[in-house]
Amino acid sequence: MRVLGVDPGLTRCGVGVVEGVAGRPLTMLGVGVVRTPADAELGQRLVAVEQGIEQWLDEHRPECVAVERVFSQHNVRTVMGTAQASAVAMLCAARRGIPVALHTPSEVKAAVTGSGRADKAQVGAMVTRLLRLDAPPKPADAADALALAICHIWRAPAQNRLQQAVALHASKGRTA
Amino acid sequence: MRVLGVDPGLTRCGVGVVEGVAGRPLTMLGVGVVRTPADAELGQRLVAVEQGIEQWLDEHRPECVAVERVFSQHNVRTVMGTAQASAVAMLCAARRGIPVALHTPSEVKAAVTGSGRADKAQVGAMVTRLLRLDAPPKPADAADALALAICHIWRAPAQNRLQQAVALHASKGRTA
Repeated sequence: MRVLGVDPGLTRCGVGVVEGVAGRPLTMLGVGVVRTPADAELGQRLVAVEQGIEQWLDEHRPECVAVERVFSQHNVRTVMGTAQASAVAMLCAARRGIPVALHTPSEVKAAVTGSGRADKAQVGAMVTRLLRLDAPPKPADAADALALAICHIWRAPAQNRLQQAVALHASKGRTA
Repeated sequence: MRVLGVDPGLTRCGVGVVEGVAGRPLTMLGVGVVRTPADAELGQRLVAVEQGIEQWLDEHRPECVAVERVFSQHNVRTVMGTAQASAVAMLCAARRGIPVALHTPSEVKAAVTGSGRADKAQVGAMVTRLLRLDAPPKPADAADALALAICHIWRAPAQNRLQQAVALHASKGRTA
């Protein structure tokens, strides 16, 4: 399974591609950051995010895109930019028929460190170890994007079983 | 000046096209709502909003797109959908090189009713009068989209003068 993780943001949008299956060593295929200038107009920034995401999709052809689920509990200005950048990432994937999965920050932290309240350094250290890298990817947004992809690969089997169970239950309900 | 107003939303995205200049009677060229099913996946809903906005841009070729500026002061779930739908609308416009203008709800209300705290009925009544319609456009999102377009046509001359003054000041600063 090849997953593009996206840590959405307007100024820095982290992107990372990981390949593998749950229970086996994972491979990093690429990591980077899509940046847009803070002084550009909002519409132009969204176009730049779209072009960046499209390049990553073109180059790596992921089977799934995992995006951080955005909450509005944080700073108002930041959360709007995050929501808008995540919308562009989801749009790019859905337009190509690539499934989009959302994971919360605490789900991602718990998946890679064992604790939903781990700090950035801990996430960076575990991403480095799990992908057998020489050093933690910089900036933190890039490491977070890889953590999202790892989280998705590990959670996907459980999520699929859950969806199948729900679908089975629903179909039984209809035939009853 | 021909303006497409967009009242962003995932379930109902209001759209309205108004043509005219400040100080002259305005003409409505079209009004409607782009809807997406609440039970569809988020990525698919964003694709549907994109397709809807693209159709309106294709049909009416506006010179400017006016979008409601989103704040995160309201309901958390709603504001995320609103931010995401507004991102798609801004992206569609910017991709075509069409300028995007943002106006707050109170700016729009003040522009068409004289009060920034006017209710929906008052906005609907003034939109009906200003565009010489037989009845207020339904649903309210459609009326709000027309109000946004009217607000932009009326505010644009002042905004342009302000931008020119700022640009002049900046260029003087550089040559000094």
